[in-house]
Amino acid sequence: MTAVTSKPNEPRGARRKRETRSRLLKAAMTLMAVRGKDSVSINELTDAADVGFGSFYNHFKSKDDIYNALMAEVFNEFGIAIEEANKVNDDPADIISFAVQCVLLRSKVNPLWGQFLLRTAFSVETIVGGMGQYMLKDLERGVSEKRFVVSDPLMSFVSVGSTVMGAISIQHNLASQSEIVTALAEHAGYNVTNIPQRTAATVLQILGINEEEANVIASKPLLDVDFVALP
Amino acid sequence: MTAVTSKPNEPRGARRKRETRSRLLKAAMTLMAVRGKDSVSINELTDAADVGFGSFYNHFKSKDDIYNALMAEVFNEFGIAIEEANKVNDDPADIISFAVQCVLLRSKVNPLWGQFLLRTAFSVETIVGGMGQYMLKDLERGVSEKRFVVSDPLMSFVSVGSTVMGAISIQHNLASQSEIVTALAEHAGYNVTNIPQRTAATVLQILGINEEEANVIASKPLLDVDFVALP
Repeated sequence: MTAVTSKPNEPRGARRKRETRSRLLKAAMTLMAVRGKDSVSINELTDAADVGFGSFYNHFKSKDDIYNALMAEVFNEFGIAIEEANKVNDDPADIISFAVQCVLLRSKVNPLWGQFLLRTAFSVETIVGGMGQYMLKDLERGVSEKRFVVSDPLMSFVSVGSTVMGAISIQHNLASQSEIVTALAEHAGYNVTNIPQRTAATVLQILGINEEEANVIASKPLLDVDFVALP
Repeated sequence: MTAVTSKPNEPRGARRKRETRSRLLKAAMTLMAVRGKDSVSINELTDAADVGFGSFYNHFKSKDDIYNALMAEVFNEFGIAIEEANKVNDDPADIISFAVQCVLLRSKVNPLWGQFLLRTAFSVETIVGGMGQYMLKDLERGVSEKRFVVSDPLMSFVSVGSTVMGAISIQHNLASQSEIVTALAEHAGYNVTNIPQRTAATVLQILGINEEEANVIASKPLLDVDFVALP
């Protein structure tokens, strides 16, 4: 979520307007992550944001409008930030490994962010206009450069995206429900630590990189990114 | 959904009771698949099922109770039916390939079923008590018999389950939204036919089976199962 900080010489009205907008976006993220876009009313959004019902329309035209703003501001900004950090990498395998771990780490720090992402997975907006476009671009470059060897690119990309989503879900369950930790751990002595790195290694193998190299790439030290401050 | 058919010599009262229960389950599936369990009230369930509010409690104790009944009756029965059909197979790869294709084909025939499954993916109930348990059993047998070669079983299982869920989601979007078909197809000339078979081939490769063999297994003729009549 965009932080609301003072800007020098900003008129009080403009600052308040930004604050209201930010509170509405935060309320939308919280309510829509838990209950889905369709089950949340504008009235509930303004109540949760503690702003008047009418104020909503000073910022957004409709529920779809605030939802799209959330997708654009939160996830697109995250995608851009990760792409920016990733500029030091040239190898698509390094780029994908880092991006996958960022998504998992960000979901760990901000579980609502992860839940919202899970809800929007595989939507047209995510694939074409949202965070999916960044991953898709690097996946396709990796395939065209023959760094990734996949026989069915569409299904491999579905599998990569799904694995990241499944990992977010498992990580979230591990953090919030002792029941599933016990169930999984007892089931076959599964090790449930270090999910971000293991997800990256799994994704690289789906992309045709052998186990040994996938583990080497996935265990490289991560670029320094502040996951709390990220959009 | 369990079909309501006449049973010989069944008293009219018992038959009506079964019909009411079946209508409530059908309404719960429809509403919960679209909006999630938490956003649906018992009142809405009885309205949608066209039964009196009080009747609900002749059949179920609570919203959780009808939800659990749905999980047990619909998904567990499906799991059992697939397991039964799969008895002619001994190779875990054949079993997984068939089960994956059944899930995709069933989701195609009954999109609400698929949507409900997507909602419950990675829940404790699904992994421990629902359909996940059947797949997990075959995955683990495949690993212990060294038919499947995976370095990180937990992550491979997450990846397999997620890939099936992602494929359901993509298949659903392909069927219902021409927009995403256009976007995907135009993006890189992706072929979007035959998703069930391609999902099975992708899953087998995640489990360490080489591309050629995975395609051979996934393209075996399917056992004769009536996906419309299945629970």
